Amino acid sequence: MSGDLEKSPLAPPEFPEMFGVAGVALATAAMGEKYQDRDNLLVVRLAEGTTVAGTLTRSKTRSAAVDWCRKHLSSGEARGLIVNSGNANAFTGAAGQEVVEKCVAAVADHLSCRPSRVFAASTGVIGEVLPFEMIVDALPGTFAGIRDSDAESWQKAAGAIRTTDTFSKGASVKTRIGGADVTITGIAKGSGMIAPDMATMLSFIFTDAKIPANVLSDITRSGVEKTYNAITVDSDTSTSDTVLVFATGAVDGQVEITDADDPAVSEFTTCLHGLMRDLAHQVVKDGEGASKFIAITVTGAEDPAAARTIAFSIANSPLVKTAIAGEDANWGRIVMAVGKSGEAADRDKLAIQIGGCVIAHQGVAVPDFDESPVAAHLKGQNIDINVDVGVGDGSATVWTCDLTHGYIAINADYRS
Amino acid sequence: MSGDLEKSPLAPPEFPEMFGVAGVALATAAMGEKYQDRDNLLVVRLAEGTTVAGTLTRSKTRSAAVDWCRKHLSSGEARGLIVNSGNANAFTGAAGQEVVEKCVAAVADHLSCRPSRVFAASTGVIGEVLPFEMIVDALPGTFAGIRDSDAESWQKAAGAIRTTDTFSKGASVKTRIGGADVTITGIAKGSGMIAPDMATMLSFIFTDAKIPANVLSDITRSGVEKTYNAITVDSDTSTSDTVLVFATGAVDGQVEITDADDPAVSEFTTCLHGLMRDLAHQVVKDGEGASKFIAITVTGAEDPAAARTIAFSIANSPLVKTAIAGEDANWGRIVMAVGKSGEAADRDKLAIQIGGCVIAHQGVAVPDFDESPVAAHLKGQNIDINVDVGVGDGSATVWTCDLTHGYIAINADYRS
Repeated sequence: MSGDLEKSPLAPPEFPEMFGVAGVALATAAMGEKYQDRDNLLVVRLAEGTTVAGTLTRSKTRSAAVDWCRKHLSSGEARGLIVNSGNANAFTGAAGQEVVEKCVAAVADHLSCRPSRVFAASTGVIGEVLPFEMIVDALPGTFAGIRDSDAESWQKAAGAIRTTDTFSKGASVKTRIGGADVTITGIAKGSGMIAPDMATMLSFIFTDAKIPANVLSDITRSGVEKTYNAITVDSDTSTSDTVLVFATGAVDGQVEITDADDPAVSEFTTCLHGLMRDLAHQVVKDGEGASKFIAITVTGAEDPAAARTIAFSIANSPLVKTAIAGEDANWGRIVMAVGKSGEAADRDKLAIQIGGCVIAHQGVAVPDFDESPVAAHLKGQNIDINVDVGVGDGSATVWTCDLTHGYIAINADYRS
Repeated sequence: MSGDLEKSPLAPPEFPEMFGVAGVALATAAMGEKYQDRDNLLVVRLAEGTTVAGTLTRSKTRSAAVDWCRKHLSSGEARGLIVNSGNANAFTGAAGQEVVEKCVAAVADHLSCRPSRVFAASTGVIGEVLPFEMIVDALPGTFAGIRDSDAESWQKAAGAIRTTDTFSKGASVKTRIGGADVTITGIAKGSGMIAPDMATMLSFIFTDAKIPANVLSDITRSGVEKTYNAITVDSDTSTSDTVLVFATGAVDGQVEITDADDPAVSEFTTCLHGLMRDLAHQVVKDGEGASKFIAITVTGAEDPAAARTIAFSIANSPLVKTAIAGEDANWGRIVMAVGKSGEAADRDKLAIQIGGCVIAHQGVAVPDFDESPVAAHLKGQNIDINVDVGVGDGSATVWTCDLTHGYIAINADYRS
């Protein structure tokens, strides 16, 4: 599996510097024989008083763990998290549900908390019940090694939640709330099955800021919409997509926040959303077989939702994605994708830019257009496409990757 | 271009026997240097009194020829058709529109009819204005060679409308209306950019039956819905999709038909719809890079529309399509595709069959499931997937092909 895959050419040169988050302790372990080269179990201990917010897949065939999180997110309180990779425990009916309940109960025993305060996520193959024995056997040893989060344990945690990911994904930032220094650190996994709606993969973000659950929920939701929900690799949506944000409040001297609009929390919100965007981009950059990172901005749409639909229509078009893989400025396929979106667009006002060069405007190709700067842009790794559809003020940006032989190679073979 | 592509492994062993249609005369010609090995212009002369019905792409960026057809289909009367391949004349603004008007006027001159009775279609590269001179120069020679439709001229016609198609697509059937023998013969083209809505490619069907335009329209619409609109190759919708059905009425002794529900026309309708399905299947079988033909039937949905949405969600899923390319019974990806469709599905009642073998039922994998018959089925060229989503009585069948390296190879390189 992932051991066989070459690292994505779009991967960051190295895993980023990750800061410890007060109130967060981590441990990882290797279970079974799934992955030879790395851990596939992550447990997280969270300080008393930790709040949680999150967004979960809207799939009608969601996994048992997603069901569990959905049920308990409303409490806004968290004390632990357990994540396994290799088995999604999805489409496993009552048996799968029972395993989740037993797993969180076992973790809760180690943490001396109520099971409902323990969140869970599973990723990997669908349709096989997660073997509870494997988990429960691993827990004592794993908890024995638990320690306060630091650069090394974050890197291990990011590694332990991978499936076909070719690199570990993390991001970390320091910011302030009122007079207090706080840290935000997050990890993510995901390469195939990335698409809205919604959260598009697993991502767990931790901060030692003190944020009430309702405020954390507002800040999380608005961030997810512009980041994790604005990426797509192949239009497929996982049954397990989960984004959870935990705030331990373990840093002293913080001002009380009661509203997401409180100016005291605005820098924090900007940093959190920036970190979410960073992680979401990393997920796209590990898109299966990706060789180009593509940003698609649509302007002039009826409203932001229409702009988003058009942008995703372009981002999910196999013909557009293969053209970019082929470094071909085939903007006719962009026109096609705008047309099929179903959203209002004025064919005779349509304008298209690639890499900042205007290729078409007023509904026709620019006469005697010089393709060389566009060709040069398409040879790079970061591709920018801007489309104005000429009917209103709505705009949106989404990110995707190209569609290459690598995608076929990975997905025609990957299973269990 | 197509000369470089190997014939699809799913192509029929040979071009079918095609019957002449009374009242239909055909001619083809090679224009420019687009295709070295075949014609790329088709003109059709239709007997006086020919009725026409059709369905056109719903793309918001439709081509100039589609606009023309849309404008004149309501008359229900036709005397001619001109089709060129290699240049879609789409996204060409006012200039493209002017070329279409000049082309149909030139054809109308040859046919001594009103320009509004001449229909037009173009397929190929988007964004370049069709050179009118090229067409007009070719017309006199082309019309000089026009002759009543027969097996040979149909085969040439089917060849002349191809772009990246690896084989010519045709179907022909004899049937009866009342006491009269009538013929239906059709051709189609399309390989990439095949998806609803709608017509998904170019297809032209001709019959010597006498059918009033309103009845022809009803019969055409109901057929398109279950055939051309039930196929997908890559979820991309062309700007030029066009299905036109012409009825010359040139066979004597036919009863008068005034209603699509008239029993006298029911055998004809069945045959026409069967021919449409045949042509639609041929289009899928020439899906770019296709190695498997996949029929997906969804039952137990809320209603037929929901069943269709779920079926297309499966059919368009790159993960499902690559799994089938890899001959992998990865039914977890089917579960995923059902889940992302957004339609109601009872996760805990879901049942999946591949090749008639029940793989999952009641929302879980069949215990100790014997994969060998499914593995054998997946090695074949015709793959059947049945999914019951357990909430109602709605059902639908759609057809697609797998996603292979061939698709990437063709689409990362194809352009003008």
